Amino acid sequence: MNHAIAGIRIACTGAGIRYRGRDDLVVMELATGSVAAATFTQNAFAAAPVLLARKHLAIASPRLLLINAGNANAGTGAPGHDAALATCELAASEFACEPVEVLPFSTGVIGEPLPVTRFATALPGLAAVAEPGPEGWSRAARAIMTTDTVPKLASRELSLDGRAVRITGIAKGAGMICPDMATMLAFIATDAALTPAMAQVTLADCVEQSFNCISIDGDTSTNDACVLAATGQAGNKPLDLQAGDAGALAFRQALEAVCIELAQAIVRDGEGATKFVEIRVAGAHDVAEARRVASTVANSPLVKTALYASDPNWGRILAAVGRAGVDALDINGVRLSIGGQEVAVKGARSGSYNEAEVARRMRSDSFDIVIDLGRGMHAARMWTCDFSEDYVRINADYRT
Amino acid sequence: MNHAIAGIRIACTGAGIRYRGRDDLVVMELATGSVAAATFTQNAFAAAPVLLARKHLAIASPRLLLINAGNANAGTGAPGHDAALATCELAASEFACEPVEVLPFSTGVIGEPLPVTRFATALPGLAAVAEPGPEGWSRAARAIMTTDTVPKLASRELSLDGRAVRITGIAKGAGMICPDMATMLAFIATDAALTPAMAQVTLADCVEQSFNCISIDGDTSTNDACVLAATGQAGNKPLDLQAGDAGALAFRQALEAVCIELAQAIVRDGEGATKFVEIRVAGAHDVAEARRVASTVANSPLVKTALYASDPNWGRILAAVGRAGVDALDINGVRLSIGGQEVAVKGARSGSYNEAEVARRMRSDSFDIVIDLGRGMHAARMWTCDFSEDYVRINADYRT
Repeated sequence: MNHAIAGIRIACTGAGIRYRGRDDLVVMELATGSVAAATFTQNAFAAAPVLLARKHLAIASPRLLLINAGNANAGTGAPGHDAALATCELAASEFACEPVEVLPFSTGVIGEPLPVTRFATALPGLAAVAEPGPEGWSRAARAIMTTDTVPKLASRELSLDGRAVRITGIAKGAGMICPDMATMLAFIATDAALTPAMAQVTLADCVEQSFNCISIDGDTSTNDACVLAATGQAGNKPLDLQAGDAGALAFRQALEAVCIELAQAIVRDGEGATKFVEIRVAGAHDVAEARRVASTVANSPLVKTALYASDPNWGRILAAVGRAGVDALDINGVRLSIGGQEVAVKGARSGSYNEAEVARRMRSDSFDIVIDLGRGMHAARMWTCDFSEDYVRINADYRT
Repeated sequence: MNHAIAGIRIACTGAGIRYRGRDDLVVMELATGSVAAATFTQNAFAAAPVLLARKHLAIASPRLLLINAGNANAGTGAPGHDAALATCELAASEFACEPVEVLPFSTGVIGEPLPVTRFATALPGLAAVAEPGPEGWSRAARAIMTTDTVPKLASRELSLDGRAVRITGIAKGAGMICPDMATMLAFIATDAALTPAMAQVTLADCVEQSFNCISIDGDTSTNDACVLAATGQAGNKPLDLQAGDAGALAFRQALEAVCIELAQAIVRDGEGATKFVEIRVAGAHDVAEARRVASTVANSPLVKTALYASDPNWGRILAAVGRAGVDALDINGVRLSIGGQEVAVKGARSGSYNEAEVARRMRSDSFDIVIDLGRGMHAARMWTCDFSEDYVRINADYRT
């Protein structure tokens, strides 16, 4: 599929911010008149670029997304803010816009000063080489990687008012991943025309159903952000928040599909992960309860090591359900299945349980765990991965 | 120190419940007139022996603690309850008491049927060999081990009414450890005389300050229990809940010391752990807030892998603080020190930060992390360990 979005130009370069011999700096230029929306980390230690991007987004329409890998510019105090602003000024100067029209994004090591001089060296000349074609997207998906092992890029197409519309997104993230708004960096663009309200609400809804449904290690990053830019160059009548509007619904479904594909790609690329597991919780009193159970199971180190071992150690799953804070849970109503095989009913092993068969299904690189609490009508799902020695190795080696 | 407690006899044997060639069954006999108190797991999937022990404790004074390792009798449904009751009947018959006077405790694999016949074979003859001396305590501390690598045994002595009083406790636990009531098995006995109210309230208080302050992996077991048995054979005037009573205070301090020594021993023996880390949070609005921050830091896989690597990756600590749900946290008020070295102030690296020196201190097998939130007068502490490849290896291999 062609990933290009009319109205978006992308330039990538190797600025040597941390990595040598690879791109680590991306500028994404949005055509005049584009509409942008974003969700950001809820971490109290939000990084300097997150704070500045939030501020810029509140007072101007963005023209540039300035993204670097290798340095998070987090835990850097007032000098970090000044550094982020300086990079916005450098990018604005190169691309002939205002600094307030630049949204900065950083990912990488926390606590190291952002090397502004490397931006100053790398940015000049990028405006001339920024490209509108699909290659920019592929390069950008690679340039924003840190501990990621594969680039993450997804597109969907739909038709609005008889015009072909495309949505393309890239994302990065493999660790420090747990749902709390947008828990990674993701940049999504569309040539559809959207009102600002439609962009923000639809993005927030889709993030809730995608990026906020994944967890690798329960740690929420200081730098997470998800941006949607709509250039409007497809020429459709701008989509607005109107109940029952078929176009808005179709767009939302396509955007959600892009978000889910990217979110799942992050889990599949989880640090040290060998398996992709969908956890579905049904029969809950409310959605919050279902999510709490799904999240407790998804983040249990004991469950995750059992997933890694393809060990049907279902007691660990029930133990996690049992500590998820479900008020007055009747364990006799709980059913558990793994890989489509019933494992436990009424707080004990199912009569039809076949350990060898469940273990065989767990050796697959993708399977699901279904937990029916048997007490209500609400459900939730989460995507997670297993926990291997390599997770420890990667995170013990990341900095030193 | 002599660990023996007057009024307590202990018998250990190898019943072959799971392990071969080692003790895995313990009977602890309490003299007539003993007072007992207990705290149990809050996990909704509490194991059959936990449910039965709670029930028996509510209606009778315990004469026997019946403890097995290798099988948790959890996730076993109604047959699990029947099996636990059957073992109580077997033990009661051997020791000439009533089944309701037996408290059963199990630890080990979840979901496997408890092999009652092995109890039936192993119990006869134990009443004759149960011993009142210190050797029973040492053997029992070893017999209850599962993934533990060292036995955990602690004693304290004090004087009440001019009489020497002793408190001795044993504990087991190395994984599935996170504070939620008593998060492991611990059996503590004293020859002091206590009223039942004094026993229960003091035990609950001491558990709160010890076992509930530790975390190895954030997972709460289905089988946790902590029991205090007071035989009264020291002959002191029974301690009661009276404000300002010097004897009650001294006893509480000694019991807390035993609990803390055992709790810290569990963390030091954490699965795969190479380091013991005390996390102190100060300057919080209330104790709950301080504990929430300490717990979030103590359970972060990213923090724990950095501890393992002796990597002063303080950004991960601040990121964990930032996601701990502290309302309106001003990061400019937060201070962080590691191993006595100031690391971060005002949301950024401290001016006096010396990375090499902090890394050197983190290479120690024991150090502390102090987080001052700078917004109140309350504090909390937790004890945790690091996260190594061996944690994954142990938990991926435990069953299969």
